[in-house]
Parts: sequence; structure tokens; C-alpha cells
Amino acid sequence: MDALTIAGKAYASRLLVGTGKYKDFDETQAAIEASGAEIVTVAIRRVNIGQDPNQPNLLDAIPPSRYTILPNTAGCYSADDAVRTLRLARELLDGHSLVKLEVLGDPNTLFPNVLETIKAAETLVKEGFDVMVYTSDDPIIAKQLEEIGCCAIMPLASLIGSGMGILNPWNLRLIIEQSKVPVLVDAGVGTASDAAVAMELGCDGVLMNTAIAHAKSPVLMASAMRKAVEAGREAYLAGRMPRKLYSADPSSPMSGLIGRS
Amino acid sequence: MDALTIAGKAYASRLLVGTGKYKDFDETQAAIEASGAEIVTVAIRRVNIGQDPNQPNLLDAIPPSRYTILPNTAGCYSADDAVRTLRLARELLDGHSLVKLEVLGDPNTLFPNVLETIKAAETLVKEGFDVMVYTSDDPIIAKQLEEIGCCAIMPLASLIGSGMGILNPWNLRLIIEQSKVPVLVDAGVGTASDAAVAMELGCDGVLMNTAIAHAKSPVLMASAMRKAVEAGREAYLAGRMPRKLYSADPSSPMSGLIGRS
Amino acid sequence: MDALTIAGKAYASRLLVGTGKYKDFDETQAAIEASGAEIVTVAIRRVNIGQDPNQPNLLDAIPPSRYTILPNTAGCYSADDAVRTLRLARELLDGHSLVKLEVLGDPNTLFPNVLETIKAAETLVKEGFDVMVYTSDDPIIAKQLEEIGCCAIMPLASLIGSGMGILNPWNLRLIIEQSKVPVLVDAGVGTASDAAVAMELGCDGVLMNTAIAHAKSPVLMASAMRKAVEAGREAYLAGRMPRKLYSADPSSPMSGLIGRS
Amino acid sequence: MDALTIAGKAYASRLLVGTGKYKDFDETQAAIEASGAEIVTVAIRRVNIGQDPNQPNLLDAIPPSRYTILPNTAGCYSADDAVRTLRLARELLDGHSLVKLEVLGDPNTLFPNVLETIKAAETLVKEGFDVMVYTSDDPIIAKQLEEIGCCAIMPLASLIGSGMGILNPWNLRLIIEQSKVPVLVDAGVGTASDAAVAMELGCDGVLMNTAIAHAKSPVLMASAMRKAVEAGREAYLAGRMPRKLYSADPSSPMSGLIGRS
Repeated sequence: MDALTIAGKAYASRLLVGTGKYKDFDETQAAIEASGAEIVTVAIRRVNIGQDPNQPNLLDAIPPSRYTILPNTAGCYSADDAVRTLRLARELLDGHSLVKLEVLGDPNTLFPNVLETIKAAETLVKEGFDVMVYTSDDPIIAKQLEEIGCCAIMPLASLIGSGMGILNPWNLRLIIEQSKVPVLVDAGVGTASDAAVAMELGCDGVLMNTAIAHAKSPVLMASAMRKAVEAGREAYLAGRMPRKLYSADPSSPMSGLIGRS
Repeated sequence: MDALTIAGKAYASRLLVGTGKYKDFDETQAAIEASGAEIVTVAIRRVNIGQDPNQPNLLDAIPPSRYTILPNTAGCYSADDAVRTLRLARELLDGHSLVKLEVLGDPNTLFPNVLETIKAAETLVKEGFDVMVYTSDDPIIAKQLEEIGCCAIMPLASLIGSGMGILNPWNLRLIIEQSKVPVLVDAGVGTASDAAVAMELGCDGVLMNTAIAHAKSPVLMASAMRKAVEAGREAYLAGRMPRKLYSADPSSPMSGLIGRS
Repeated sequence: MDALTIAGKAYASRLLVGTGKYKDFDETQAAIEASGAEIVTVAIRRVNIGQDPNQPNLLDAIPPSRYTILPNTAGCYSADDAVRTLRLARELLDGHSLVKLEVLGDPNTLFPNVLETIKAAETLVKEGFDVMVYTSDDPIIAKQLEEIGCCAIMPLASLIGSGMGILNPWNLRLIIEQSKVPVLVDAGVGTASDAAVAMELGCDGVLMNTAIAHAKSPVLMASAMRKAVEAGREAYLAGRMPRKLYSADPSSPMSGLIGRS
Repeated sequence: MDALTIAGKAYASRLLVGTGKYKDFDETQAAIEASGAEIVTVAIRRVNIGQDPNQPNLLDAIPPSRYTILPNTAGCYSADDAVRTLRLARELLDGHSLVKLEVLGDPNTLFPNVLETIKAAETLVKEGFDVMVYTSDDPIIAKQLEEIGCCAIMPLASLIGSGMGILNPWNLRLIIEQSKVPVLVDAGVGTASDAAVAMELGCDGVLMNTAIAHAKSPVLMASAMRKAVEAGREAYLAGRMPRKLYSADPSSPMSGLIGRS
């Protein structure tokens, strides 16, 4: 099997999904089912996974027995906040160590604050967390996060909730080529082809939320995304044809390009 | 079922494939099987479908009982040549009327000659052929071909055998919006995401050959293309999220863009 | 001097401009002055150059003694209309033979009708006109128009009045490489960088109207366009540096690309 | 005059140039003359501006009486190295306080190390330097550098020496919109249109070296760049026409796009 291995565990699906912005837990559940995702991320500050025993609990819809729950720090703007949030998550999830760290720099753009992200990553790794880390597409920062011990690097394709797709495939390529841990595109995917492009670049996986939850038909889009991630992965493994300006062109001027042969 | 109907017949698959450039008929067969295609196009001038009874016959590998065989005029540079070739195909295929017309303008670029294409289409439609027509992405020519009575319009995404993907999505959009017959992208797809983009634009299908046959692993790429076409179609039907520069942006500046919400 | 020669006459400026959509003739005059253009195109069906002796005459603001007036057939949808319009222009302009032919296919998109364009070009060339011809970016049609005897090929960059820039540089490149007469981008330029890109591709000139007339400050934009066309031309002649993914990259993967080294 | 003001001094030219990679000081001088640049940056570690009294001194070709010399830290990979280098430059240049800080993260890609850059900026600002700072296109880092007191933010368009142009105009736009000090694109410009695009985005200036020095004809390219920067600036000030898919399109779907109306 062409498995994605994160923190020592193998997954058949390379599509990771969020749980926010759905109409209700039923829709969340149906969309996640259709996506085929095995790892489901949850914003600890926004979603009830037991903090409030009197409210519906997401984990009843998305049971940890079936899914790997990935607590995340959406809404945190400092290392301290993020660390505190993930310690709480660990308690709520019985010592679960796999987490997604994100520290944002600006409530408007939701661009990551890479300095605070690095600080938080250092603390969390020391405390034994398996840290999947959301970051910019800066390859030097990505390297530093890997050296700190993060178990997956998750650069943005474009801003959270923007649906703008992959704005700078070149930086992603630099990150993919240098990384020894899995690289997953996180944030910015807007439609199926965006996910396919990410996988064709050589990403190990894609994480998304809004692209599914805010489609007119989330369940159908979840199915589209499942197929797109598989298609992109298979195309990457299959090795695409060379690009040429025209078929009889003796040179192959486009080799080296994105999605290159 | 979300079927593609061409000349009165419904197809579950929206991926049409060619038969050229494979190592041998076994590879052709395995790749077409993996692609899920139901319509398979054959270059009458290049492939033996019975013209030479002493050579292996493609139809033994790709039987017409299972596939809709779509004879095409690859290698024809005039209306006369194309018409003659398709009359021959009709004989070889027992009166079969569905054909793919292409008249090229230049052996180097393989760009279509739209004037000769129009002439040939007029003759073929009068003779009772169901003409799927390869053309440029010129929306006025596309309209004229539809008015002549072609049963499907097949604009290029980029040059035959180039793998350059969709160079001008805007023209494709104009063609899709105006057409009452199916529009299929023909030529130029290089990898899975290209096929997904074509479908997200609203194309009814995609035809390809080199992208599969010249991948390092044609069978795996055929599977990727099958999933990519389905993913793109589902994403189109699901209705993608709006594009925004950033999530909190009050305007939605990117509506109207390709793959628009 | 690096002159642009059209129909035997040399011009220092490679920027050609239109006269439509301005507030009044004063603004037209000031913008054209700032653009440095020597060839000024006039829509015979829309602008008074003497058809109506009781109305202000554009030629008082843009005198033929100073500018080469290029009558055009904007608003014509058939070869007959276009030919008739240019015969009238020749009378009004005392036997002047240099004209710009455009035959449109659709009042909505203003996309050219290449079939009618070819018909009109054949007639006009026979009647002794020097025909600069507006067309799509189809290289086969461009070749046919050159063979008919047109003295300049003027492919669109994108639709008239769209300001969308150069949608398909690859087709332009094919046209530029094959043509022995000047190739000028006509239609679609929206801002200064679009004009520079056209020139860097190797175009011999650029014709525009809306990009100047509908800028907030037309006179300043005219100056910008003058500089952009010169900058693009000089960059083309200077020979750009090679593109590389990064400086130390041993291969130069981007050669052959648009604006290539 | 539409002046660029940096650290309290007004400049007519918005094009800043480097001095590396030329054949000899004569070519350097001729190209800089043709570029119209008033600020000229010098890599203190590579170019002799008096460190070695026995070698030719760049300042004889590019005299500080005529040009603002901008010492830079090319080749520095740590805050300490960069600070030390700029202290030396201040001595060599008689107390001159305007400097360009760059701290690189990797000798291969030359991508900036933003953590070390921030450290160095803090020290240099405290020591009274006027710091123009090279950085990634991360808007949060750009904001932090501005808050530290840098007098100009200089994000990359693409990697140093790559000539890849502006890979992510969206991030540049976020930086431009938030910044109260001048924003200059530094690194990545490959040809004239790239410089025009940067200015149309609203950048206050552009700094380049390789695009001029490694053109086949550096002096002609320098002239092209001068015009391109002026063209882009004027187009920005003139306010471009709106983008539309086609002229008669009732909506203006492309507003908000790069180079937007």
C-alpha cells in the first residue's frame, strides 16, 4: 500500500479534513464519510469535544475509535495560547499526543506567525507531543521546524479560508525536496484541481476544511476531493509526460516546471 | 446517473481515450481498462482495424462489443482527405456513424485548420455522420461547427502532444456557455490536474492520448485520469466555495474567475 | 534606428492607438500626444472624419499631416460591410491605402470572425489596399492572412475592451516565429506591463485604445504605455537573463519559456 | 515631483541597482548610468570600496558624490556577520547610516533567514543605522521589521538571481497595503515587464542586479528597466481600466485582481 505515515502510524488516505463551518454535526459526519479521511482535525477553542458536558459532543459524530482526532489551535495568536490549548486537548483526549499547531499573526489574513510557531513547537516537542505544524511556505522556517522535531510540515497554499489555490508552487517544491518528514498542504485549497496540483507537486497529503464545508454541496465536494487527492498522488507516482511547446519540438523546454516530467 | 450523452447514446464515463503511442496492444488494453473509458478513438490512417488482414487488429484488443470505437482523421491536412478517411472507417466498422473529425494545419504544431474542418464537417453531416469535431478554442468557429450540425465540439486545451494543459480557459468558457451540444477538451492535457480543471470549467468530457501513453507508468496514469475527470465533474456539480484574497475580506473579488463559485 | 516598417513606411514608435471612448477631442489629442504614437486608428462607422461636414471632424484634432490615419472597420460583422466601409474611407482620405481590417463574429464578445476576415482580406488586397488585419491568435489563420498579402498580422491578446492582458502567449509566439510581416498585438492590453510583455515576446508593435481611454487618467496612462512599449522592445533586444528556479541551480529549467533567455 | 523618500531623502528614480556580476567597472558604470538609478547597492564582502587600497575601488567608478551608496550584507548567514559587516561599511563610508540588511538562510537558494534578519535589524536600528531590509514575502515578518524601525521593507519577488519574476503578487499586496514605510521589491525581477508589474502592484521601487548584469546587453537592459519602472509607476498612478471577461460583460468580475482597477 502507498501509505502516508505520520508519527509512526500508517494511513491509507492522504486527505485530512476539518470539522468547522458545517451546518450541523450530521452534515459534518456525512462529508467526512464521503471524503474518506482518516485524520480529522478539531479546533479545540471552537468545538465541543467534552469541555462542555451539556452540549452536543463532536466525538459522538466523529468517534475516536474510527478516526484519528487531530486537535488544533485555530484562534491562537501566541505560543503560550497554543501550548495551553494543546495541553487541554491532551487531557480531553486521554493523553493523545498527535496535534496540529497553528499560531496566527493576524485575525484578518490568518497568516501564520512563524516566530511564535517556532517557540510553541520547541515547547510542545519537549513535552512529548507529535507536532504537525502549520506554517508559511518559507523553506528556511520549514527546515527549522523539522529540526525542532515536528513530525509533519504543513505549509499554506494560500490564506486560510481563501480558496485561492496554490499561489507559489516553487516554494512548496523547495520544501518538499528538502524535507525528510511528510509535507502536507494546509490552507488555501478551493476546489478539486487545487488538491490534485498539490499532490502532483509531491506533497504527501492535503488538509482542508472550507473547500468542503462551504461548497454548495459539501458531501459531493468531499467525494470530489477524495478522488482528486488520489488522482494527484497516482499522477505523481505514474510520472507525467514531458511538456513541450508542440509535439514536434526537438527540445523539451518545459522540463523542470511544476508538475514536471 | 450523471451521464454524458453523445449522438443519442448515454455514457457513464466522461473520459475518452486514444490508442496511439503505446508499447503494444497489451499496454493499450490495460491502460484503457484502467481509464474506465467507454469511447476509444482510433487513428484510421495509423492503426489497423482490418485494413490489413495480415497484421494484428486493434479491435481484437479493444472490441467494439465493449467499447464505442471512434474513428478519427489524425494525419489529415485537407477536408477531402478527412472525408475520404471517414468513409473508409464507416465501411470497416459496418456503417458506424460516430466519428471524430480533425483536419490539421501544420505537421509541426498540429494546430487545426479550421477552414478545412468546416468544409469537411459540412460534407460529413450531409452524409449522415455523427461528427465530433476537433477545433481551436475560437468560439465563433465553435458556433459555426455547432450550426453545421456537429454532435460535439472538441476544442484544444493546448497543442496535440504538448502536455501544456489549459492555456486559455477563458475561450473554453465562452464555448461552454454558448454550446447546446457537449463540449469536450481534446488535446493538451498533460497530467491529472489538467483534466480536473477542464471539468471544473464545465466541460462535458475530456479526450486524451499522450498524457496516458507517454507517462512513465501508463496504466497508473490512466487510473489517475479516471479519478481526475470524476473529481473535476463532481467539484463542478458540487459548486465550489468563493475565492477571496483572505477569509475576512468583505468583498469576494475573485468571483467570475475560472473555477468560480 | 530600430524602426517599425509597415507597408514600406518606417515608424519610430511601436505603439499604435485608437481614438474611441475619450471624453472629447481635446482629451483624445492630449492622450495621443503623450503616447508618442504615429499611427492612429479611426473607426469609420463611429467617428466623423468628414462624412458629416456639420459635425466636429476628428482630423482637425489629429491631422493627417502629422499622423498616419489608419481607418478601421470596427462594428462590421461581414466581409461585405468591411470592404464597403474601407472603400468609403479611401475616398474620405484621398486615396489612402493603409487600413485596418476587422470583422467581428459576435456583438457580445467582439471575437473576430476569421472566415469573413479572410474573405474581406482577399478582396481588399486585390483592390490595392495595404491591409493590417485584426485576427484571433490562431497561427494557421495568421499564416493564411499573410499568404493573401496582408501587410501586418494583428492577433488579439484577449477580447476587445476586456483589459485581460495576454491570455495565450504561446500562440502569439507561434505567430511571431512564422511571420515575415510585422506582428502587432491588437486588443486586450489593460495596463503597462501587458504592453511590455507583448513586446518581450517579440511582437513588432502594440495597438490599444480602451486601456488608455478608460484609465482614470488617460494622458498619464498614455505616457505609461509609451514607456512600456519602449521598455519591452529594449528588453527583447537586450536579451534577458536565463530563468532558474534558484541561482545555484545547475540546470536552467526555464529556458524556452515565455520571455525566455 | 513623484519622489521616493527613504530615510528622509527624496529620490526621483524608483529603480535601485546592484554592482555585482558585471564584466568590469566600465560596464558597471555604463549600465548604472543608463538605468538612471540614484541608489546603488554594494556587497561589502565582495566589492572593494577601500578595504584593499591596492585594488581598483568601485567608488572611483560610482562616486558617492553622485550616487547614494547602499552597502549590503550579501553573503552573510547570521545576524552577527551582518551586523559586523555593516559596521565596517559605516567606517569605510565615513559614518554613512543607510544600509541594506540581508541575512540568508541557505547558500543554495539564497532564501532569507527571517529570524536572523529580525535579530540583526533590532541591533542595527539601535545603533542608529537606517535599515532597508531584504525579507521574504511574509506579511507578518514584514510588519515586525517595520515595527522594529526599518526604513524600507524589501520583499523578494522570487529567489535572488532566479529571474523568475513575481511569484506571489498576493503576499506583496498584503505587505504594500499594511506598510507605512516604502516597500521595494528586491530579488527575482528577470525582465522589464516584471519591474512594471511590481510597480503596478503599488510597490514604491524595485531593486535589481542580475537582470541587468546578466542580460546579453546590460546597458540596453538598464535602459529598459528604467522605462519599465517609470511605466509601471505611471500606470499605477493613472489607474488602470477595469478587467472584464469581455467588453459587454455587465459585471466586472476581475476587480480586486492584481493590477486591479
